[in-house]
Amino acid sequence: MINEPPVGVVGLGLMGSSIVAALLLAGHSVKAIAPLASEAAEAPGRIEGQLRQCREAGLVGALPPYLGMLTVSEDYAALAGCQLVIECVIERPEIKASVYAKITAVVAADCIVGSNTSAIPISELQKHIDTPARFLGIHWAEPAFMTRFLEITCGEQTDPVFAERVFRLAHRWGKEPTLLRKDIRGFITNRLMYAVYREIFSQIETGHATAEDVDKAFRYDAGSWMTLMGIFRRMDYLGLKDFNAILPRLFPQLSNSTEVPEIMQRMVREGARGVHNDHGLYPYEPGEGQQWDDAFARFNREIHQLAAEYSAGKVKAYLQ
Amino acid sequence: MINEPPVGVVGLGLMGSSIVAALLLAGHSVKAIAPLASEAAEAPGRIEGQLRQCREAGLVGALPPYLGMLTVSEDYAALAGCQLVIECVIERPEIKASVYAKITAVVAADCIVGSNTSAIPISELQKHIDTPARFLGIHWAEPAFMTRFLEITCGEQTDPVFAERVFRLAHRWGKEPTLLRKDIRGFITNRLMYAVYREIFSQIETGHATAEDVDKAFRYDAGSWMTLMGIFRRMDYLGLKDFNAILPRLFPQLSNSTEVPEIMQRMVREGARGVHNDHGLYPYEPGEGQQWDDAFARFNREIHQLAAEYSAGKVKAYLQ
Repeated sequence: MINEPPVGVVGLGLMGSSIVAALLLAGHSVKAIAPLASEAAEAPGRIEGQLRQCREAGLVGALPPYLGMLTVSEDYAALAGCQLVIECVIERPEIKASVYAKITAVVAADCIVGSNTSAIPISELQKHIDTPARFLGIHWAEPAFMTRFLEITCGEQTDPVFAERVFRLAHRWGKEPTLLRKDIRGFITNRLMYAVYREIFSQIETGHATAEDVDKAFRYDAGSWMTLMGIFRRMDYLGLKDFNAILPRLFPQLSNSTEVPEIMQRMVREGARGVHNDHGLYPYEPGEGQQWDDAFARFNREIHQLAAEYSAGKVKAYLQ
Repeated sequence: MINEPPVGVVGLGLMGSSIVAALLLAGHSVKAIAPLASEAAEAPGRIEGQLRQCREAGLVGALPPYLGMLTVSEDYAALAGCQLVIECVIERPEIKASVYAKITAVVAADCIVGSNTSAIPISELQKHIDTPARFLGIHWAEPAFMTRFLEITCGEQTDPVFAERVFRLAHRWGKEPTLLRKDIRGFITNRLMYAVYREIFSQIETGHATAEDVDKAFRYDAGSWMTLMGIFRRMDYLGLKDFNAILPRLFPQLSNSTEVPEIMQRMVREGARGVHNDHGLYPYEPGEGQQWDDAFARFNREIHQLAAEYSAGKVKAYLQ
């Protein structure tokens, strides 16, 4: 891989760092650009910690070669020679636009530029880049080096050839990627989860259920089959018949609200940042938030290994 | 436990059998009533297989004592002396009503009667039973002996004392139960999942995504945190801020459809029963359906064990 062009990553916040780690583990050399000085200072240590976490999980061998493949810079000129650059800066179109201008000033016209956005339509972002055909969405899930999810999304002007190139590459990254040829706001998972949120908040606000109840139900019902089956396979598994009896009775009763739920408005007013400041939808003891971080890191390793036993190819092999 | 009254189960289809196995494993003696002769013939073998499955998973020791604690009968008189009877017959109110009449003819007035219904409101079913205060919903997830989910739901006339009694008992069954004091159609998980279905089918029907894409996204995104966190804890974990930016933009764009999706209507016309007749939303090779059954049985053991490491008490212990 020594002769391959490096991959660029712009933005070294939590998500950007974790994408850098994922790319290093996949054998790429990485040119990382830190637009904020604070990120440039913090990112290398964080990435090293993430690589150590992967080593402890048995995902990789010794560490030294990985770190030697990374350069961190504040200067976009370092991206020259990249064939793929992934942008993961803050979700503000005008900031992203200025980042795209700096990227395209130094890379070749056929260098793929991907955005990790989860909220802004690709077709909209695409208006802010030269040669928009090479622009697309590459949406990762945290922690990028340990999750199999990757959502590749074309905008209206994207040439599918570029999307297919990233799709193939994603398999080398250990992903189970999806490729959306049409750009929809919120992509797949966001839309599905926001459909859940709309219904769930209406149940909480009417006092029909508590947050604890909802989480228990989701963890122990959906959680008991989700990783194996997804939604449609689950329907096949249950036999389909009951769904058609229930769909027309339940659909009309679901929430169609367009309002931000009152409890979320209150969280904003109170400056709640969840586990990041021990103030959220749940009560937290001081320091408990950090401990949830540790629990999630441990859980991620375990669900990653469990999912590996049931990845598409292996379920098929098991079924034969 | 030898002096405890037995627990009754009426209806020995797939779900009823699996509830019987769960109760036997929890140390109850069980009086099982098979309203259909075919169920009476098939159920004991199936239950024995399920107990064997639990033994192989290391959940229990040797088998003989469990089977000795089970009697299967077509005669409701066997229920006399039960303090709890769980009904799990077909989802048709008039059939359930006739079952309740037969149960109440033989048990004491304070014997709790629970229904495993997932679709009919408890307040509605409650109209068909003598002494409705002792009637409530006890909703299990398949396979009942291996999942931690249990949704206990009061109807309008239910005395909460009975619901609390079942709630306490459920912990002995190894469950993480929820107790809904108000009766809502579809309870918690059904409403949340149907909110997902409404959105997902609209994405499929407009050609924005394929069933395979949706399942991949759900398995590898939601599946990577669901079992640990549920919905609200996940929001706290992500920091809450982004949600308030996205909620008002995405809610108005979600599907509000009340129609049964065309693909589901087609499945009904075609007699599709999913893995049960190798004809469903996915294509199946002959016999592949049965193999999904085996894969799910194996997965269930593993996710059950993984979830055990992160049950409420243990996460707390880990966090301290």
